[in-house]
Amino acid sequence: MNATAVSSFPCVHIVGCGLLGTSIGLALTQRGVAVTLEDSSPAAVDLARDYGAGDAREDTSAVPSLVVVATPPDVVGSVVSASLRAFPEATVIDVASVKKQVYADVSGDAARFVGTHPMAGRERGGAVSARSDLFTGRPWVICEGEEPRRSRVREFVQELGGIPVDMDATQHDEAVALVSHLPQIVASVSASRLGSATPAALSLAGAGIRDVTRVAASDPALWVQILAANSTAVLPHVKALRADLDNLISALENTSAKGARAQIASRLQSGVAGVSALPGKHGVSSELASLLVVIDDTPGQLARLLTQLGDWGINLEDLRLEHSPGANIGFAELSVSKNVVSVMEQKLVEAGWKISGETE
Amino acid sequence: MNATAVSSFPCVHIVGCGLLGTSIGLALTQRGVAVTLEDSSPAAVDLARDYGAGDAREDTSAVPSLVVVATPPDVVGSVVSASLRAFPEATVIDVASVKKQVYADVSGDAARFVGTHPMAGRERGGAVSARSDLFTGRPWVICEGEEPRRSRVREFVQELGGIPVDMDATQHDEAVALVSHLPQIVASVSASRLGSATPAALSLAGAGIRDVTRVAASDPALWVQILAANSTAVLPHVKALRADLDNLISALENTSAKGARAQIASRLQSGVAGVSALPGKHGVSSELASLLVVIDDTPGQLARLLTQLGDWGINLEDLRLEHSPGANIGFAELSVSKNVVSVMEQKLVEAGWKISGETE
Repeated sequence: MNATAVSSFPCVHIVGCGLLGTSIGLALTQRGVAVTLEDSSPAAVDLARDYGAGDAREDTSAVPSLVVVATPPDVVGSVVSASLRAFPEATVIDVASVKKQVYADVSGDAARFVGTHPMAGRERGGAVSARSDLFTGRPWVICEGEEPRRSRVREFVQELGGIPVDMDATQHDEAVALVSHLPQIVASVSASRLGSATPAALSLAGAGIRDVTRVAASDPALWVQILAANSTAVLPHVKALRADLDNLISALENTSAKGARAQIASRLQSGVAGVSALPGKHGVSSELASLLVVIDDTPGQLARLLTQLGDWGINLEDLRLEHSPGANIGFAELSVSKNVVSVMEQKLVEAGWKISGETE
Repeated sequence: MNATAVSSFPCVHIVGCGLLGTSIGLALTQRGVAVTLEDSSPAAVDLARDYGAGDAREDTSAVPSLVVVATPPDVVGSVVSASLRAFPEATVIDVASVKKQVYADVSGDAARFVGTHPMAGRERGGAVSARSDLFTGRPWVICEGEEPRRSRVREFVQELGGIPVDMDATQHDEAVALVSHLPQIVASVSASRLGSATPAALSLAGAGIRDVTRVAASDPALWVQILAANSTAVLPHVKALRADLDNLISALENTSAKGARAQIASRLQSGVAGVSALPGKHGVSSELASLLVVIDDTPGQLARLLTQLGDWGINLEDLRLEHSPGANIGFAELSVSKNVVSVMEQKLVEAGWKISGETE
């Protein structure tokens, strides 16, 4: 582990010993920072302390230079305000998924508050899921704050391995409404349809339905708070989506009507344009190509495949496994830059791999 | 390549030289079956013949015992009817994504027709994307048909490597409406929202939005036909989804109203239940657990990881790569049976791998 001392704040107090709070504590103690812990549940503090995330507050008289508020979203504002009162010199940050409401709720000496949001980890799982390297390589949004406190928070984020992203609270809330909160809603309402599905229908389920519904497994109690807190930014997206569905429904109800098919095609075409706007794996919009390779359903086969790709100097942009019910073989979907795909295909065929078509 | 002769039908005529038709042709010629090809585009026939998928129809006087109709969905019914007339002894099958409309459209000696749908490959990409093993290990739905023709179609499917799934046309259309057509609509309308997104918002895009929108990249021209043909089965799902959105919108518009949060939570909870109904990789509903392992963004690292998993006898149920913009490291999400995850975690840590938390 990296034992470089965190220079920005020598003594940190963490309120909330869930996944994020405990992970921050672990990362800090491993870097030699004095950490104290607090939680409304004494058992949570004990667990986080046992994991090595810091000491209980009563065990020390150290005065924190930074307070990290990592409580559930609905109490963040009041806990930040209380922390500003309790530690009259400290910088206070939070790590909640929604930022405008927190800024609105903070009272007192708010000039010492900086709102942040690490795009890492779900706020579920508690201390048992905590990792000191949870933030490594993850975007960590830093919102409004007064200097020099804000710059020191930025350094702090970098020292924990995060990638600082500067946004104001409004920009942040609008961004996550689109890239995080809307997908959660879409996944949940889509997955709801599966509750009454027949076993026959489920037996045909492929990558499409799995991808669309995956995040629906997230913790409802947490997501109610997030969606309620960011309802202003989320609502326009949900309404626009409903308008598109209304449009599709009217076209599907009379597909022989003039213009009905053009109406459907236009919605689909707009989706093609939208998905191409997503940045590629390396942060730039790029065109990838994929090959499906047939593999035995054994771990050794996949390792052999990837070893060969490495030997050939081919860097995967994405890789997915897929398996049909009842079959003893699987498929590895290899995504690479378009300018590499034909070389990769040739080498794979020469090496005896079977290449399949695209996934349904 | 497997050179076992296909016993069910010694001579096969294929109408439509796209991805599916050409792939079937390739698989058949490699098994020693005489194949003739037909397409409204002479260039498409030439290309498929060059690939080795069969001969042009005019080159032979052989009488097919099976005709495979692999045209775009909107002309399948008329092409099947014409094929029944042209080959008065032959069994005729189609491979379209929607089945009831085809059965309704078929005229003439319909007793010789059996509707089928291989859940493999998108019907785009044409002959250039064709693969003789496209169907290996994939479910292939076989609908109503008279015996003994239907049983021979079933054997044919198995001989091409497919896994026969028996359903009537109504069951099929309802199943794909839910597991294939609804996800396509949801992905398209969600991806449409990204068209006007700011670069800042897109820079925060993680696995959630990518998963939900992935299939939105599919060919709109094809999907208009599929959705229009299956509108009866698709509409109830889209309407139910819109009703859920209406419900969420009204709750989000006044989150402090009595019952509003319970209303949101209930939609989310129903999504959790729905997603758990999806069968696991091996065709049975199973509970998987995932670990995120930090890897260098190089192919060799991932191969080494998978080689070790193989050495330890750990079989992955799913594997995904993830990468944050601007970072030189990536994450491999390893999904295994819940009863294996703690052993895997221990071995990974012992072997020096860094384990991260869950993805956002």
